[in-house]
Amino acid sequence: MASKKKYGERVENFSNKAARELLSLIEHKKTNLSLALDVTTKREFLEIADKAGPYICLLKTHVDILVDFDQDFIEQLKELRTKHEFMIFEDRKFADIGNTVKHQYSKGIYKISEWADITNAHPLPGDGIVSGLKEVGLVLGRGLLLLAEMSSKGSLATGAYTEAAVEMARRHKDFVVGFIAGRKLISDDDKEDFIVMSPGVGLDVSTDGLGQQYRTPRNVILESGSDIIIVGRGIYGSDKDVAVEAQRYRDAGWKAYLERLAN
Amino acid sequence: MASKKKYGERVENFSNKAARELLSLIEHKKTNLSLALDVTTKREFLEIADKAGPYICLLKTHVDILVDFDQDFIEQLKELRTKHEFMIFEDRKFADIGNTVKHQYSKGIYKISEWADITNAHPLPGDGIVSGLKEVGLVLGRGLLLLAEMSSKGSLATGAYTEAAVEMARRHKDFVVGFIAGRKLISDDDKEDFIVMSPGVGLDVSTDGLGQQYRTPRNVILESGSDIIIVGRGIYGSDKDVAVEAQRYRDAGWKAYLERLAN
Repeated sequence: MASKKKYGERVENFSNKAARELLSLIEHKKTNLSLALDVTTKREFLEIADKAGPYICLLKTHVDILVDFDQDFIEQLKELRTKHEFMIFEDRKFADIGNTVKHQYSKGIYKISEWADITNAHPLPGDGIVSGLKEVGLVLGRGLLLLAEMSSKGSLATGAYTEAAVEMARRHKDFVVGFIAGRKLISDDDKEDFIVMSPGVGLDVSTDGLGQQYRTPRNVILESGSDIIIVGRGIYGSDKDVAVEAQRYRDAGWKAYLERLAN
Repeated sequence: MASKKKYGERVENFSNKAARELLSLIEHKKTNLSLALDVTTKREFLEIADKAGPYICLLKTHVDILVDFDQDFIEQLKELRTKHEFMIFEDRKFADIGNTVKHQYSKGIYKISEWADITNAHPLPGDGIVSGLKEVGLVLGRGLLLLAEMSSKGSLATGAYTEAAVEMARRHKDFVVGFIAGRKLISDDDKEDFIVMSPGVGLDVSTDGLGQQYRTPRNVILESGSDIIIVGRGIYGSDKDVAVEAQRYRDAGWKAYLERLAN
């Protein structure tokens, strides 16, 4: 059974700054849509982000695929963040031991912790990965998502693995604000609250030929009790009008949420 | 039971160019030592790599922690590769869906596929991650390792997960050349051969305070049948003479291998 609470009412369930800000933003902007923006040039990226900006709560990035990434990109990204009022989620999928991810999060060329409100990690290496990231991110007000499930074909993040992800999140509630998963993972009886974001959402296609599988906003928000739909090529694929598609997905996601509240 | 075959004799078991080159190199350079070089500046990195170079078969990198990474770094890295005759393993731990890792491997600032002989991936997302990387790497003669186990405390890469990694490798033998694991994962009766590399090797310490756990070269090569020891801070930690320590680990690893052959 999906949560009957409004996004805004859930703010008080979190001590984490990024989680509180995100839930407030979703409530007043009336969008649970995250854009997964996987293009490889700054120009394309910033153009699409500017067009989709008014309709999204969260911009999901893979900065490490941009061929012309530089500090100017980060500056422009921050400007768009302010202009359209969305938050930034670097989908880094950290997956190493604590001491390594600490460096990968704060150092290198990307300095992810300096500009990404939220990032994510696989629980696979054990609690050390969360401890390492938390050493960097908590004091900056950042939040972490654990990948509890994946939307790709043959994913091994199932069953006991998913349960272990939930337990790990419970041990680090100050920093772990939610999950990447296809569905709500804890019951409404639980005192804890976690924000669930679901990738692999599309209205028009069902696969990408490299193992990605798609579901609709209604499946994800209403039936599975997830909180945020992550949509990529459905919005900026070839011949798409980005603003039109972003609005379409925003409407579909929000409608499913209102239906969930009313049910 | 660990393999009784010499490294050089195993070349014929592989069609993959990087695997063949690595086994030949280990045989004639008489070293099964990989240096895990996790420092954050070019200067430190290149200095240590130059000192350890004569004693290693494989230099394991995390380029995304270098604060001053640039194209010059890659050029200097390639020069050291030629000077000392070692191969390069970017420990990227890819962990995303096929379409994303394809871009992360070939594009962005790092263009990993252009200079790393070997990289690695988590089997977690399903076969699509291997297919995506293979589309980029196979034609370049690159090889992939799957992370079948991790050396950190509380790792979820155990049991059925590890078995699934082995099965995935078997389905992609042209590109997957081995595993990151603590031990040999297939029996000597199997027709397949995979190169096993083990991280978390140290002669003097047992933990790092962020969940990493250490074992000795003898544990890893002789008792567990792994093929390559991956050593990091044990070689370049504070107050260490890099050349002395690299030689010490090289000797320990090679001695364990000779003992394995003789047993």
